[in-house]
Amino acid sequence: MEKHFDKELSLLKERILHMAALAEKQINFACRVLLDRDDSLVDKVRQIEDSVNKLQLEIDETTTNLIALHQPVAHDLRFLIAAVKVTAELERVGDQAVNIARFACAVISQPQIKPIIDVEAMAAVAQKMLGESLDAFVNNDPALAHSILLEDDKADAYRDQIYRELISYMSKNPSSVPQAVPLLLISRNLERIGDNATNIAEDVIFIVKGKDVRHHASEVKG
Amino acid sequence: MEKHFDKELSLLKERILHMAALAEKQINFACRVLLDRDDSLVDKVRQIEDSVNKLQLEIDETTTNLIALHQPVAHDLRFLIAAVKVTAELERVGDQAVNIARFACAVISQPQIKPIIDVEAMAAVAQKMLGESLDAFVNNDPALAHSILLEDDKADAYRDQIYRELISYMSKNPSSVPQAVPLLLISRNLERIGDNATNIAEDVIFIVKGKDVRHHASEVKG
Repeated sequence: MEKHFDKELSLLKERILHMAALAEKQINFACRVLLDRDDSLVDKVRQIEDSVNKLQLEIDETTTNLIALHQPVAHDLRFLIAAVKVTAELERVGDQAVNIARFACAVISQPQIKPIIDVEAMAAVAQKMLGESLDAFVNNDPALAHSILLEDDKADAYRDQIYRELISYMSKNPSSVPQAVPLLLISRNLERIGDNATNIAEDVIFIVKGKDVRHHASEVKG
Repeated sequence: MEKHFDKELSLLKERILHMAALAEKQINFACRVLLDRDDSLVDKVRQIEDSVNKLQLEIDETTTNLIALHQPVAHDLRFLIAAVKVTAELERVGDQAVNIARFACAVISQPQIKPIIDVEAMAAVAQKMLGESLDAFVNNDPALAHSILLEDDKADAYRDQIYRELISYMSKNPSSVPQAVPLLLISRNLERIGDNATNIAEDVIFIVKGKDVRHHASEVKG
């Protein structure tokens, strides 16, 4: 029974990593709409979205059944509860990617107003945070989780810099407003991907820090 | 034991409703910063934020312990798993309120550019959706949950209308940019509160729709 449970946990982790890989692919495609000025990728972002949404439902169902069937406690239970929260974060990452792709179309529909180096750098930070948060989750690595919480400041600094620059640019060049506003909203969506990664990192800390309730359980049930 | 569990479930629901009431208070104060042009309320929004964050940790701990101690299955288990997701949504609502309060300060730091009737109406829709989603959750009301999914279109329509209006206004009045952009971001945060409510409504549907795994459980364990 124990071995069977361990195998099921491994399979669950694999499914979550598969979901994460799809969400990361979505972000990549969405950012490439902007950076490569290629709106043919928008459809791909939406197609993957369907798979990501279905995977969330499937993984949540599996997780609930694992808890009901194996009645895990302590670390395993906390991991499974966190798994449900992690899939919710990944589903939101997919939503953010769809938003980015949509805003990117508005940006590239007109000639480029200014270099978008900061947005590219911010996208790299958000993607790194997301990848690391998933590593921390499947490898049970609270030290890595803590380091992600610090990286969030980097994403926020980019967000603030992009905000200031675009406000100033729009004030001086009002014809750029229809292009600069969606660019600003892309930076907000990248910030939210950083937040999703931060939330996953906090879930990792929840798993590790939790009190072990097994002793208490045996008292009540014994 | 059963009665004890039912009592604990009731207490948990009360704590979640308390958390929801605090998050709703935060939104109210945050919107009043904008609508009453009163930046003294920003501190209140932040103070409540601390309580909301603490309540999330406390409720998640209680929920995890209830699952470990009582090993519920079927509906009760799904309710408890959903509870952890609902508190995460409420914590995000609190974050949105802090953002709204911050952007509102930027808006009111300058003379009013145009009536903000739409933002007020959109705030009312988002708050109604959030209140109803919590009602659907604690009263196990999937019909109400379904109606919230439809209401999300209303919030999205306001979001799009405010976007179009502000883009046009800024293009014609570039000096309004530093004020109009935070107003636009307030509408995005209100949209996200609508999304949080929609997510809670989906959790209610997850609780009700789930397959009953008890039969399967007794087979495996028997």
